[in-house]
Amino acid sequence: MNLEQMGQAARDAAYVLADSSTQVKNQALLVMADALEAAAERILAANQQDLNAARESGISDAMLDRLMLNPERLAAIASDVRNVVSLPDPVGSELDSRMLENGMRLSRRRVPLGVIGVIYEARPNVTIDIAALCLKTGNASILRGGRETFHTNQELVKVIQQALTASQLPESAVQYISEPGREWVSGLLKLDQYVDMIIPRGGANLHKLCKEQATIPVIIGGYGIGHIFVDDSADVLRAIEVIDNAKTQRPSVCNTIDTLLVHDAIAASILPLLSERMASKKVELVADADALALLSSGPAKVRAAVEGDFDTEWLGLTLGVKLVPDVNAALAHLRRHNASHSDAILTNSMASAERFINGAPSAAVYVNASTRFTDGAQFGLGAEVAVSTQKLHARGPMGLEELTSYKWIGQADYLIRS
Amino acid sequence: MNLEQMGQAARDAAYVLADSSTQVKNQALLVMADALEAAAERILAANQQDLNAARESGISDAMLDRLMLNPERLAAIASDVRNVVSLPDPVGSELDSRMLENGMRLSRRRVPLGVIGVIYEARPNVTIDIAALCLKTGNASILRGGRETFHTNQELVKVIQQALTASQLPESAVQYISEPGREWVSGLLKLDQYVDMIIPRGGANLHKLCKEQATIPVIIGGYGIGHIFVDDSADVLRAIEVIDNAKTQRPSVCNTIDTLLVHDAIAASILPLLSERMASKKVELVADADALALLSSGPAKVRAAVEGDFDTEWLGLTLGVKLVPDVNAALAHLRRHNASHSDAILTNSMASAERFINGAPSAAVYVNASTRFTDGAQFGLGAEVAVSTQKLHARGPMGLEELTSYKWIGQADYLIRS
Repeated sequence: MNLEQMGQAARDAAYVLADSSTQVKNQALLVMADALEAAAERILAANQQDLNAARESGISDAMLDRLMLNPERLAAIASDVRNVVSLPDPVGSELDSRMLENGMRLSRRRVPLGVIGVIYEARPNVTIDIAALCLKTGNASILRGGRETFHTNQELVKVIQQALTASQLPESAVQYISEPGREWVSGLLKLDQYVDMIIPRGGANLHKLCKEQATIPVIIGGYGIGHIFVDDSADVLRAIEVIDNAKTQRPSVCNTIDTLLVHDAIAASILPLLSERMASKKVELVADADALALLSSGPAKVRAAVEGDFDTEWLGLTLGVKLVPDVNAALAHLRRHNASHSDAILTNSMASAERFINGAPSAAVYVNASTRFTDGAQFGLGAEVAVSTQKLHARGPMGLEELTSYKWIGQADYLIRS
Repeated sequence: MNLEQMGQAARDAAYVLADSSTQVKNQALLVMADALEAAAERILAANQQDLNAARESGISDAMLDRLMLNPERLAAIASDVRNVVSLPDPVGSELDSRMLENGMRLSRRRVPLGVIGVIYEARPNVTIDIAALCLKTGNASILRGGRETFHTNQELVKVIQQALTASQLPESAVQYISEPGREWVSGLLKLDQYVDMIIPRGGANLHKLCKEQATIPVIIGGYGIGHIFVDDSADVLRAIEVIDNAKTQRPSVCNTIDTLLVHDAIAASILPLLSERMASKKVELVADADALALLSSGPAKVRAAVEGDFDTEWLGLTLGVKLVPDVNAALAHLRRHNASHSDAILTNSMASAERFINGAPSAAVYVNASTRFTDGAQFGLGAEVAVSTQKLHARGPMGLEELTSYKWIGQADYLIRS
């Protein structure tokens, strides 16, 4: 099939899904979960093929690990699908319903978006994850995974489509672009006649490509420089715990911090403690001149910051440190240095907290909490489709509701506009 | 200023607006309304310049009328600005607020989108209208009007910026691109570093240009083929009234109907009445073969439909007519013929009504009501920014709320993720 045909098939499937009850969709998800377990041997063999090819191509250990499936991981994926069954279906709920003066009953009803295109990289669990979340919300999906996972994804999509067919749903409700070649990605991004939304799940380059090439709305997200600002009123000892958590609990993900901003009135008391803690966690510090003066005698490795350091998402054990005179200077730094994901203030001052909440340009703003909470599960959304850093449609962690749109419904008794 | 500088200035102004109270924003709007009346002479003189130039270029009377200001229209524009003052400010309200199990208070707070780019055609009232709605919601705006309104818009923007300055708000909260040349439009569409949303207000070509060139989310809308389906259970006489209203009350706008679909079991009783009514309203009919057979003996002008007729937005006194065997065939027609704006079913059957509501791909679906109701004021939104036919962010008439985003706010007592 070419892209045009895939788009048309997805659109047709979307009409069927939009008309399917929650019960039918849940049943298909349960069949899918069972089928994943039943096909474990086949899926793991295909994954082995991908792993062998990846090893030969000299891929990093971290990438290999992301690519790898084993019986436990596959069981976890099946269990995640069953978890999606237990989530409430947002489709069909009415957002508000009112009687207009002219006698029209007007409401907005949640409906599926339609067709969602998802472009992602190595992790094969995304294939099942996104297919399940789209199916639950009545959306058809067109998936495009990384070429490293080719064989694994072929098997996973086979399982998904068999589960759809067994549940009397169209198998084109979930389609996978298996042809190699970037032109397929470019083509998908311009399929605006059929596709309603593009979700890129990957790094900054993938998002940039989508933003530049797509004629379809794209959900941009998943990266941004994270900051903690330590106000002069903060509890120093407790602040260290939050900074440690936000930097080191899982340094490779997008809700960790990259830069620590410290009120200069509290710098002399907190920076020595910071140096000790960061040394014990093997975090290297990258400090502006003022911070460097206070950090150079400490145990943590430290170097002077250079141009671009405060614009770097480290995704590892490095932390920028900079002194600022007050909360406004901290906010000015955030605005210049791509704070768009998660940022926190540590303070005991209500005025500083409110100033920071209002002024920070971030999708998620915290007062006296770690930035690590920006996550669909932590926020109680039940599932996480993506973390948006744009402001349209959805911002921050996106759950099932963010895979829906609404339609206006006006009901009356042969009413005309006067 | 170049576009980069305008973008930066707009972004800086947006931070000030986001921090401004409703009172300050309302005060600026009142100053603006007064200033419009005070500057009436200057504005009308500038408008006269534009009208003279337009006449010389041989512009149509309809276009001239859209371009023309007079004392009454200017007073109405000032009055519209005062009306915006009376609308509730959506910024600052909390969408939901809850205490998580871990003790974090989590909420979503409505915030301005930031910077909004608006590209529009001849009507100078859009300049004031959009500037006022953006200001009310704390958004900075960058405007680009049609070249026919150059002089008028220069004066209007001068008034706006003076009102901003007099109210201690940055004058770059509302900026206008006055340089000629398409490269300014293309440049604005790629200013994603500073601009959060693009609203095109114009025809299909402008929307297409924005969709193809923009790296910023675009609100697509304002057009689409409108349909009424007359089910076999409909009240024939009352159906004629609704069809007449939806076609002829204001034939040039986007919420009128282009195609009438008629259940074949009711065609013989309704089409003769339709022909009579349409003849009296000077509407030409364009009929498929089955409908033509029933319409050719009637008083209304009728011709056989050809390829493309059912894909045409007439924007005038023409109406397509086609017979269909049932509601599902009507829905299939809607799906093939770009129904994305407003569509209605006339029926006394609950089953047909529910089927149509669920199946129609339209932003607004009506049961026994005219499509002419798709309008911000009719829906009680207080203002209308645009009518979206896309599914992301906003669908159908957009009011003030649709000019906002939200940020997640998590507050706790030095909470870390375990």
